[in-house]
Amino acid sequence: MKIDLRSDTLTKPTPAMLDFMMKAQVGDDVYKEDPTVNELESRLAKMFKMDSALYFPTGSMANQAAIKLHTQPGEQLIADQYAHVYNYEGGGVSFNSGVSCKLINGTRGMITASQVEAAINPPDFYHSPLTTLVCLENTTNKGGGACYDLEEIKKIKAVSNKHGLGLHLDGARLWNALVAKGEEPSSYGELFDTISVCLSKGLGAPMGSVLIGKRQFMDKAMRVRKVLGGGMRQVGYMAAAGLYALDHHVDRMAEDHQRAQEIAILLKDQTYIKSVESTETNIIIFNLKDTIDGASFANYLFENQIAISDMGQGKLRIVTHYDYDKTAHARVLDVLDRF
Amino acid sequence: MKIDLRSDTLTKPTPAMLDFMMKAQVGDDVYKEDPTVNELESRLAKMFKMDSALYFPTGSMANQAAIKLHTQPGEQLIADQYAHVYNYEGGGVSFNSGVSCKLINGTRGMITASQVEAAINPPDFYHSPLTTLVCLENTTNKGGGACYDLEEIKKIKAVSNKHGLGLHLDGARLWNALVAKGEEPSSYGELFDTISVCLSKGLGAPMGSVLIGKRQFMDKAMRVRKVLGGGMRQVGYMAAAGLYALDHHVDRMAEDHQRAQEIAILLKDQTYIKSVESTETNIIIFNLKDTIDGASFANYLFENQIAISDMGQGKLRIVTHYDYDKTAHARVLDVLDRF
Amino acid sequence: MKIDLRSDTLTKPTPAMLDFMMKAQVGDDVYKEDPTVNELESRLAKMFKMDSALYFPTGSMANQAAIKLHTQPGEQLIADQYAHVYNYEGGGVSFNSGVSCKLINGTRGMITASQVEAAINPPDFYHSPLTTLVCLENTTNKGGGACYDLEEIKKIKAVSNKHGLGLHLDGARLWNALVAKGEEPSSYGELFDTISVCLSKGLGAPMGSVLIGKRQFMDKAMRVRKVLGGGMRQVGYMAAAGLYALDHHVDRMAEDHQRAQEIAILLKDQTYIKSVESTETNIIIFNLKDTIDGASFANYLFENQIAISDMGQGKLRIVTHYDYDKTAHARVLDVLDRF
Amino acid sequence: MKIDLRSDTLTKPTPAMLDFMMKAQVGDDVYKEDPTVNELESRLAKMFKMDSALYFPTGSMANQAAIKLHTQPGEQLIADQYAHVYNYEGGGVSFNSGVSCKLINGTRGMITASQVEAAINPPDFYHSPLTTLVCLENTTNKGGGACYDLEEIKKIKAVSNKHGLGLHLDGARLWNALVAKGEEPSSYGELFDTISVCLSKGLGAPMGSVLIGKRQFMDKAMRVRKVLGGGMRQVGYMAAAGLYALDHHVDRMAEDHQRAQEIAILLKDQTYIKSVESTETNIIIFNLKDTIDGASFANYLFENQIAISDMGQGKLRIVTHYDYDKTAHARVLDVLDRF
Repeated sequence: MKIDLRSDTLTKPTPAMLDFMMKAQVGDDVYKEDPTVNELESRLAKMFKMDSALYFPTGSMANQAAIKLHTQPGEQLIADQYAHVYNYEGGGVSFNSGVSCKLINGTRGMITASQVEAAINPPDFYHSPLTTLVCLENTTNKGGGACYDLEEIKKIKAVSNKHGLGLHLDGARLWNALVAKGEEPSSYGELFDTISVCLSKGLGAPMGSVLIGKRQFMDKAMRVRKVLGGGMRQVGYMAAAGLYALDHHVDRMAEDHQRAQEIAILLKDQTYIKSVESTETNIIIFNLKDTIDGASFANYLFENQIAISDMGQGKLRIVTHYDYDKTAHARVLDVLDRF
Repeated sequence: MKIDLRSDTLTKPTPAMLDFMMKAQVGDDVYKEDPTVNELESRLAKMFKMDSALYFPTGSMANQAAIKLHTQPGEQLIADQYAHVYNYEGGGVSFNSGVSCKLINGTRGMITASQVEAAINPPDFYHSPLTTLVCLENTTNKGGGACYDLEEIKKIKAVSNKHGLGLHLDGARLWNALVAKGEEPSSYGELFDTISVCLSKGLGAPMGSVLIGKRQFMDKAMRVRKVLGGGMRQVGYMAAAGLYALDHHVDRMAEDHQRAQEIAILLKDQTYIKSVESTETNIIIFNLKDTIDGASFANYLFENQIAISDMGQGKLRIVTHYDYDKTAHARVLDVLDRF
Repeated sequence: MKIDLRSDTLTKPTPAMLDFMMKAQVGDDVYKEDPTVNELESRLAKMFKMDSALYFPTGSMANQAAIKLHTQPGEQLIADQYAHVYNYEGGGVSFNSGVSCKLINGTRGMITASQVEAAINPPDFYHSPLTTLVCLENTTNKGGGACYDLEEIKKIKAVSNKHGLGLHLDGARLWNALVAKGEEPSSYGELFDTISVCLSKGLGAPMGSVLIGKRQFMDKAMRVRKVLGGGMRQVGYMAAAGLYALDHHVDRMAEDHQRAQEIAILLKDQTYIKSVESTETNIIIFNLKDTIDGASFANYLFENQIAISDMGQGKLRIVTHYDYDKTAHARVLDVLDRF
Repeated sequence: MKIDLRSDTLTKPTPAMLDFMMKAQVGDDVYKEDPTVNELESRLAKMFKMDSALYFPTGSMANQAAIKLHTQPGEQLIADQYAHVYNYEGGGVSFNSGVSCKLINGTRGMITASQVEAAINPPDFYHSPLTTLVCLENTTNKGGGACYDLEEIKKIKAVSNKHGLGLHLDGARLWNALVAKGEEPSSYGELFDTISVCLSKGLGAPMGSVLIGKRQFMDKAMRVRKVLGGGMRQVGYMAAAGLYALDHHVDRMAEDHQRAQEIAILLKDQTYIKSVESTETNIIIFNLKDTIDGASFANYLFENQIAISDMGQGKLRIVTHYDYDKTAHARVLDVLDRF
């Protein structure tokens, strides 16, 4: 049987989640009459101790809406060079918001307060775009699931406040960070103006992300979601999966992290491996030795019915998730050890 | 029990539809690996005899993506002044595509070939935007569910061809037109470059629209859906509702039309009514006499647990749908007769 | 010798204006170090009793910048269906600002306060674009140089204030209105948030427009001019023409109006004329009788070395200006009388 | 008397240039009836052996128009991290074109063919923006007036062709490169799809830039210039300055380069200097030693009536130009030597 470790977005609902979805009370969410969507939004707002929350069909739209809510065309945001919003959202920052990115050469997708401060354009020099937003990502996707130190985020918040910049968190995998670090959602709610969290990925819902934020930014969120085409109808069936996952799938991510850790440790010992990046959550990024033919490695995995991702520039990625169980894990460890 | 006639978007899945949804085979549609989504797209493309189809979270996004696929910023599209794309998609034509609208004062939301031809800006006069697209809507929403005569569309197609314009159909309620007129989807597939159809509304799926089109326009559709934030994951559960509805909910729309017709006939005889627009499908638009206090009429309906829509400028709207059954119909006729 | 009445933009500087231009003190206006540009801006701000003013290469850019300063993408402005900003600025409202237009069927390019109020979208219905700006044009170009009644503008201002809308004046030919009506610039400065005035057209400078406005809108004007590519260097030579024109070319526009009036009166008596629109300033719009062949009329004028504009849909336009003198006028009257 | 070395944009026309300007034949360039503008455009197209040319009020607009002509919203261009189009055009790439930048860490503002190839996003991976354009700058502004090796550009052209990318040259200071390297304009015309050249800066015209290009890109250039607000009227007076400069101010830039060279050599010997970047044309970029107080150095120059630019991050910039003559040069050398 195939083991798919390309991404944690590939998970399918458990029978229990599906049963919960099917029993959801629904309504027309365009009229804000879907009780399940409303409950999910309300629950997440409370969990992060923020003013309000809004359900989106995708994490990309939640991020893009947040960027639009923070910026005006011609302005500039600061992010790490690995940022998902810059690299993997189809050029949406410029397409949807007319905004450019000042990219920082950070560490595993994470930037520091002093890097942020150095990247701000002088506000009265109108040749350069006006800097108005900082976007962080936690955990980092392209950075191998790295987790920010909350203390560094506090410093970035201080810099943002000092210069009047908005602060948005792409929390597509924030749940992994919370579990790995033992942190509370409200610690993030205190620091950020807006936070997107994904219900798919580690949580395992079939779709959906939620943007959570302060009132001043969220006031126009419904309007922005509408213009981007994100106002759905009886979407409570999908929101229900999110509610279920919040109850049952958060703590169990520790297993994904444990298995990722074990894979990383095993890989480090293999003769065909050049390097394995530090593995903190459910993503393992590694490089083969230059002498190893990538195609033959890929072929070996394929024959053993294991799928992983090629990130380009020699990087390979394995992502663990809840459809990847104990049995599959044993097989993967064995296969990797035998190459 | 409340009878909600504000819109046909308010319907909820039947138990049979829900059962079908929850048994769907799903996969990650961002990787195009959701078999149910793929089946729905393939089925609709064949039904309309067009090259390909793509699932969207909403009809607004399907329309907005189509407009983007047809146009470049600064260009102009031609549509009726009642067009949904201009009036009710949050200003998306300009926001998403940087495109302006030349609006025609048509008849019940429908425009003619000669009106289209007169509205085209001279292509070599660069002071004016370049006209590149014609958008029709069938049935018309704000036009009271009116259906185009296919012969007029053929003439509009000829004008579009002559001037090199794209031709898009907002078919949010195209199913109603097909049923009311006894037409085939392929008759529309032959005439248009792109067509959006809605699975919610009359068909009763909880969410989702599909954009169907010629290859030259659809080639970049995945890219545009991505940048707008419409690339979802295991959304096959929702696509399944669409497949179910295509099998079971199309023909039955004739009932919605019949009931709408009966409401319209009854309203015409009422002393409090100034006018009822011609009713061809499931939408009845009418005006109260100037001597009637709108608020007291609204209050009367509210007390009788009937909800309808106020379209502004004195127009009221009733929309029939599959959650509006025989019993509810009898009650509504009675209540309207007794005011 | 050819008499060119297609537009008042065709005028060339008089020797005195040219002499004044070439003696201008200049500097780098990107650094705001051009004393002549600064003087022109300062003078116009004072003349209109507004906070500040900024020089632009063209009237289109001044208008487009103003619209950008007032709006955010997705919003909507209200204007007459004849508005220059909608019809003749290349689709810039949508291209530059992502904004759509709600067009009013006004009278000769002019709209009323009640029409404006009826055109405002409900602010809490996020399906429709948020209305945030009203644009008036005075005199109206496509409306035949018609002048607003200041009392109507005051009512429009009241409606704008009531609904929190910005109010912009496209004053490309405001000088003509001031002269024709005997009004003061400050009467307009009191009512509008931003006003664009043209130094070309009736004033006869080779190029340039100035945007004048309240501080809250003008604060970002330099930034918007920069991003549109309007920040020029030693452009004081051109600004000097504007200063010269303000001293010498304003009052003399009465002559242009007088000659336009005489042409209009003569045309009304001609057997080949169907109608002549009311002529208040320097623009005469008229229609030939349906029995007259437009091409032969055009040919007749061409043979007599007179050029006028065809505005489409059977409308012809004559524009008087300072290169059109007494001798030319006598010849034109004679030629028109002899057809 | 003040010596202003902040930029070569600060130059004022010589009496001879001004005299030539004053005698220009002009017309309405919006109608393309200005003979002097037409002559300038025609002359530059021929000089570069390209299909056509168009006059713009500024270099920023010429660049921004070129980027618009090459791209569609959501796409990505490749440029050096120092690129003027990214850093100093107000965020116009994203504002005007909805395009993002992939920035390369090049050498003194110059990038290589292999860097370009590595920066291209995979065209069939629609998560990432589609790469469609490469922008080079020659000489580089922020890179200290560095000149590309024509052989490297040929390699970049080959990469662009291979991947179907457009190739634009920001030639704001291309004249300096031509003079410094003894190259022909046509060598650039052969390699690029579009080239912007500036008539201000080294050439000394008061304003204006020209976009020169292949027909397929230039076909819509008038339309793009219009929508950006760049269509001016009797602007031949300014174009005349460009014609004059092409005849009289190109070769003399060798003097500016010679003086810059002498300043650089002198600076290298000073005890207060940390480093002087390689100086090839008219720009000298240098850093003070960390022990030197920047403010006191600035104050010293100010007291000696010499103005230079602070580029941020400890970089200082001197730019030589035709208003900087032999006498001024002697004084500057002396002042710098005496600090």
